[in-house]
Amino acid sequence: MTNRDLSRSDEPTLADLGEFGVIDRVVGAAETSEPVVIGPGDDAAVLSVPTGAIACSTDALVEGVHFRRDWSTGTEIGRKAVAVNVADVEAMGATPIGITLALSAPADLPLAWLDEFAGGVRAECATAGVQLVGGDTTAGPVISIAVTALGDLAGRQPVTRGGARPGQVVAMIGRLGWAAAGLRTLSRGFRSPRAVVDLQRCPQVPYGSGRVAADAGASSMIDISDGLLADLGHVAMASGVSFDIDTSTLEIAEPLQAVAAATGGDPLAFVLTGGEDHALVATFDTAPAGWTVIGRVIEAAGEGPAVTVDGAPYEGTAGFDHFGAAR
Amino acid sequence: MTNRDLSRSDEPTLADLGEFGVIDRVVGAAETSEPVVIGPGDDAAVLSVPTGAIACSTDALVEGVHFRRDWSTGTEIGRKAVAVNVADVEAMGATPIGITLALSAPADLPLAWLDEFAGGVRAECATAGVQLVGGDTTAGPVISIAVTALGDLAGRQPVTRGGARPGQVVAMIGRLGWAAAGLRTLSRGFRSPRAVVDLQRCPQVPYGSGRVAADAGASSMIDISDGLLADLGHVAMASGVSFDIDTSTLEIAEPLQAVAAATGGDPLAFVLTGGEDHALVATFDTAPAGWTVIGRVIEAAGEGPAVTVDGAPYEGTAGFDHFGAAR
Repeated sequence: MTNRDLSRSDEPTLADLGEFGVIDRVVGAAETSEPVVIGPGDDAAVLSVPTGAIACSTDALVEGVHFRRDWSTGTEIGRKAVAVNVADVEAMGATPIGITLALSAPADLPLAWLDEFAGGVRAECATAGVQLVGGDTTAGPVISIAVTALGDLAGRQPVTRGGARPGQVVAMIGRLGWAAAGLRTLSRGFRSPRAVVDLQRCPQVPYGSGRVAADAGASSMIDISDGLLADLGHVAMASGVSFDIDTSTLEIAEPLQAVAAATGGDPLAFVLTGGEDHALVATFDTAPAGWTVIGRVIEAAGEGPAVTVDGAPYEGTAGFDHFGAAR
Repeated sequence: MTNRDLSRSDEPTLADLGEFGVIDRVVGAAETSEPVVIGPGDDAAVLSVPTGAIACSTDALVEGVHFRRDWSTGTEIGRKAVAVNVADVEAMGATPIGITLALSAPADLPLAWLDEFAGGVRAECATAGVQLVGGDTTAGPVISIAVTALGDLAGRQPVTRGGARPGQVVAMIGRLGWAAAGLRTLSRGFRSPRAVVDLQRCPQVPYGSGRVAADAGASSMIDISDGLLADLGHVAMASGVSFDIDTSTLEIAEPLQAVAAATGGDPLAFVLTGGEDHALVATFDTAPAGWTVIGRVIEAAGEGPAVTVDGAPYEGTAGFDHFGAAR
C-alpha cells in the first residue's frame, strides 16, 4: 500500500489550507507561558533562561525510514517526534522547556492526519512539560519532521558522554527492547502484543529523570536511541573507559519473551541492541532511587574502550544504520 | 533531468559512509568556542547566554520546493540553509550565535555533494558569525534540510512584529527582488544576469543589522522571505496598523530591469512581491544609518490593517504559497 492510497480524493488536504493555514493549524494555536517570552508567530521565539545555559538538540523523523503511516497514527507520530528529541535534552541533565518543529508534507496529505499529528505533538509536549515555541511547514514528497528541543540547565553542569570513571556503576531508567520487539511484530504483519507495538509507535521517555541523574552526580549520560550496546559504545569512546553489562540485572519483560518465541529470536538481543526506546543510561558512584544498576565502568584494556556483556564481547549486530553501511 | 541522473554509479555515495560517517562529515568536525560550551557529538549542545534570553527559529528547505540540484551547487544550498534561518534571528534584534542542522538525503547522494554542502554551511556560518553546534542526518527520498538558529538577545528587548506605531517610518536594509528575478531567469532556462542568479541561489543577508535596528529603537521588524508586501502584511496585522510604501524610494537595480525587459514583466513587481532575499524591514522614529526609508506607518482604516503602494491597493499577487492555495 502506498501513501497515496491512504488519501481519499474527497477529503480536505493541505492544499485546501495553504501554507499559512497549515502553520497555524500545527503551530499557531499553541499558548505559551513562562519561560517562553515570545511564542509562535513572529520571526523567532524568545525563551528566558535566567541561569544562562541552554541545551539544544535536533533530530529528524522521515516517513518510510522512521515511521509508516499505515503502522502509526498521526497522533503517535506527533508524540514520537517530540519524545525522541526531548530525551536528548534530558540526557544532558537539563530541564526541557521548548521545542520548534519543521514539517514537510505532501500537498495531498489529509487535513485529518495533520490535526491528529498536531494533537499528538501537543499531548506529548504537555507530558514532557515543554512548549511548542515555533516552526515551519513546507511541501515535500513525504512527511519529514525535524524537531529542535531546548532545555534549561538551571545551574547544573551539563552531563556529557565523556565523564564515566572506572569503579562507577552503569544504571538505567526507562525501557529497553520494547520498541525493537514492536518493530519485529509489525514487520511480521502482527499488531500484538499491543504493549510493544505501542512503544514502537511512541516511546515512554522517563521525563524528569535527566535532572534527577544530574543532581545525583551522574558523571556521564546518554539516551538509548540506537541500542544499549551501540550507545554505550559512544560513551565508552568519549570517556576512554570500558563497560561491562551484567545481563542478570536486565529485565526481559513477558511481551519481549513472547515476541522472541513467536519469531525465533533471542529476547536478550532486543534489550541489548534494540533502539528507539529512549531510556536514559548514566554512570554514578551511587545510582539514585528508581534507577536500575545494569553494569559497571572498568578500565579500557589494551585494545581500547569497549562494551562487554557478562565479561565477553557480544556476538551480533549492535545497532541500526540509516544509510545501510556496516558498523 | 531527475536527481538520479546527477549521480554517477561509480562515485562514492552516502551509503558508503554510513549514518555516523555522514554526521561526522557534516557536523562532527566543527570546532566550537564561546559561547558554545558543548558542541556537536553529545546528546545536545550547550550554549552560554549570560543575559538569559535566547531567540530561536526553525526553517526547512526541501529539494524540488526550495532548491534544485541542477540549479544550485551543494555549496550554495548549504549557505542558503544557514542564511535564511539566521535572518529570522536577526529580525528579532538578537545576535546570532549557533545553528543546528537536520539533513535527510538519499543513500545514493554523491559524497562530493555532501562535502560541498558541508563546506557551504561552514562558510555561511563564518560569514554570519554563528557556530554549527549539532545536528542529525538520516535517509530520505529527497534532500530535506531543517536548520534551527539561536540568538542571544544580549540584554536587548526582542523586536517583534507587533510594535509599529502610526507616524513612524518603514525602513529596509539588504536587497529586494533580486532572488525573484533570479528565479525568473533560471525558470526560463537562462543563467544570467549572474548577479540575480547568484542571489537566488543564496541571499546576502545583512548580518549584524538586526541588533543595530534594535539599538536604534526599532518598534517592529521582519525579514522578507515571502515578499515585501506579504511580509509587511504580517507586521500590519500584528501591530494593528497600515503601511504605505513609496515606490519612488525603491531601488530598481539594472539587473532587475534587464530580467523584466527580457521576460515581459514589471521590475517593480520583483521588488514588491519577490521573496527569498531576506532583507530586514523595520519601523523607527528615525531610521539608523545605512537603512533606506521606503514608506510610513499610518492608522489602519475602517477595513483594518493593510499595505498600500503609493496610496493605493497593489494589483497583483503578494506572495508565494508552498501548498498552492490562494491567499
